Amino acid sequence: MEKRLKQNMIYQGNVLSLEKVEVLLASGRKTEREIVHHPGAVAILAINEKGEILLERQYRSALKESTWEIPAGKLEPNESPLKCAQRELLEETGYEAAQWQHLHSIYTSPGFTDEVVHLFLAEKLLLRKANPEFDEEITIRFFRQSDWEPYFCTKEIVDGKTLLAFYTWKCHAR
Amino acid sequence: MEKRLKQNMIYQGNVLSLEKVEVLLASGRKTEREIVHHPGAVAILAINEKGEILLERQYRSALKESTWEIPAGKLEPNESPLKCAQRELLEETGYEAAQWQHLHSIYTSPGFTDEVVHLFLAEKLLLRKANPEFDEEITIRFFRQSDWEPYFCTKEIVDGKTLLAFYTWKCHAR
Repeated sequence: MEKRLKQNMIYQGNVLSLEKVEVLLASGRKTEREIVHHPGAVAILAINEKGEILLERQYRSALKESTWEIPAGKLEPNESPLKCAQRELLEETGYEAAQWQHLHSIYTSPGFTDEVVHLFLAEKLLLRKANPEFDEEITIRFFRQSDWEPYFCTKEIVDGKTLLAFYTWKCHAR
Repeated sequence: MEKRLKQNMIYQGNVLSLEKVEVLLASGRKTEREIVHHPGAVAILAINEKGEILLERQYRSALKESTWEIPAGKLEPNESPLKCAQRELLEETGYEAAQWQHLHSIYTSPGFTDEVVHLFLAEKLLLRKANPEFDEEITIRFFRQSDWEPYFCTKEIVDGKTLLAFYTWKCHAR
């Protein structure tokens, strides 16, 4: 347990805020923690009737490279995780799903951020019309099981939430 | 692909830095990205000869709660991931391991941070002496397979890297 002594908001941005917190440790000593506040997010493992998984290819500024990830997005104020997942799947990929299941909610990096990602399984997909945000330049593709199984297990996928959704689904499906 | 137009360093801290980047999208429009730079980290799935997994209980300021996580820590400048994993395991838990294997390197949240976590499997453990940093107040415990298997699959573990190390190990062990 740590007691918060002082909080200093360094930056409040569109998505993130950064806070510096002085805390009192159990030992009686003091230290500082840098904390990134995040609104929380969802990520969706969408599987069609052939058992194919929907992945997105997207350029990630933070990494300076493109990645394959499952569809995902940030929570709007007061939005439930399920509503957010349904909205993001439709916006980014054009798909609705008739069947939804919550898989897990995980912290991406509890050492410095409160970001939580709610992972969902979406099945019984229906194609509608995509409507991505102007700053989301996304290519989508369905991967057959014979294609994605080796992908996941041979380290081609490097995005944490994508791997976690896949593994949690495999774990619960057993 | 996005072209970087302007970069503005907002904050440089002990651990993190925060940068605001203006980018040119493929469409010709501009947008801003908030990026948290992180030195990178390691996390260690340490398993003893009884097949028990070593977990740490630690208070996480960002979450305002305590979590069960595998041992982990940040890379020092010019430190290799393996050296870092060996150092962190010893410092935090008092254990050395005679056998090391790299499991995967994953991005924790590529939408806003370049943090990469290198996941290792450590086996053939030898007890030496722990020497945690003054601001790390940690309790360690070995979990038997009968205890941790349900833990992982019933959502008691909420830390991404811990789940990822466990699942990657299970995947590669098959």
